[in-house]
Amino acid sequence: MDEVIADPIKKFIQLYNRDYTVPLDLKIDAGNEIYHHVPKDVEQKWFEYINEPGFFRDLEIIPDSQRVIKALQQKYEVYIVSAAMEFPNCLKDKHDWLADHFPFIDWQHIIFCGNKIVNTDIMIDDRIKNFVNYPGRPLLFTSPHNLLVTDYERVNTWEEVAGLLL
Amino acid sequence: MDEVIADPIKKFIQLYNRDYTVPLDLKIDAGNEIYHHVPKDVEQKWFEYINEPGFFRDLEIIPDSQRVIKALQQKYEVYIVSAAMEFPNCLKDKHDWLADHFPFIDWQHIIFCGNKIVNTDIMIDDRIKNFVNYPGRPLLFTSPHNLLVTDYERVNTWEEVAGLLL
Repeated sequence: MDEVIADPIKKFIQLYNRDYTVPLDLKIDAGNEIYHHVPKDVEQKWFEYINEPGFFRDLEIIPDSQRVIKALQQKYEVYIVSAAMEFPNCLKDKHDWLADHFPFIDWQHIIFCGNKIVNTDIMIDDRIKNFVNYPGRPLLFTSPHNLLVTDYERVNTWEEVAGLLL
Repeated sequence: MDEVIADPIKKFIQLYNRDYTVPLDLKIDAGNEIYHHVPKDVEQKWFEYINEPGFFRDLEIIPDSQRVIKALQQKYEVYIVSAAMEFPNCLKDKHDWLADHFPFIDWQHIIFCGNKIVNTDIMIDDRIKNFVNYPGRPLLFTSPHNLLVTDYERVNTWEEVAGLLL
């Protein structure tokens, strides 16, 4: 979900802007995370933000993800697999966000987990830790933190996913 | 979780007893579900009960499940995989119940899903629908509704699981 179909980075920047005047037009450097760009004494604040009920409820949607995933459903069995269990206060928020923005994905095809030990043919993910021991075809969805990674087939946008898989 | 480490049947009976005087010592016949044993006009009431926040929060623990799962962790990587997504109001309750009674299972090893498309070697489950297309070794955990099933290796208790796997 995060950084693939939902945009938590924009929300982090807004919250750090509100509390610590981090600039709203902050660009995260290649290979870095949001916490590399905020004052040293509040670099763990993102973890508080993310654990607050409501954090995930109004995230912006990554462009074209709805349209392309709907099209993928014509050809594939599509699952949403989110490492949501790290933030148990937000399970319902994540569920409700999906119900709002991806209502065409039914409950059978939603997985909230820790380790992503799913038995699928393809995985689209921004975190390479999820590709360790994954037996299928990994597609690395571009996010600032993974820009320096060269070990995986990369997709920069949902338009590119469509080009590859449709 | 349900009917394997947590006991929703006892709670269903208590609620049907409270509202419709179904006897507290009700035994569910082999191959049947709770709704086969309640008045015709309230046989779907179980679905309302289960969707109420709090339903899963105080379920009794299936005997020996804590002790045996803790022992299994010495030899296996143990995941809890629950079809919790069917009851989105209860995601947090199920999470908190696990935190209370199985605190030795960390968030990385908890999966709330619909279809159980997990890539594991063994699956202990009471519902044979979860064994369809499952490539590993299924162990059918006995529950009244599955007593007539003969197609799978069966475990009647967690003591039997220990005997097989430890």
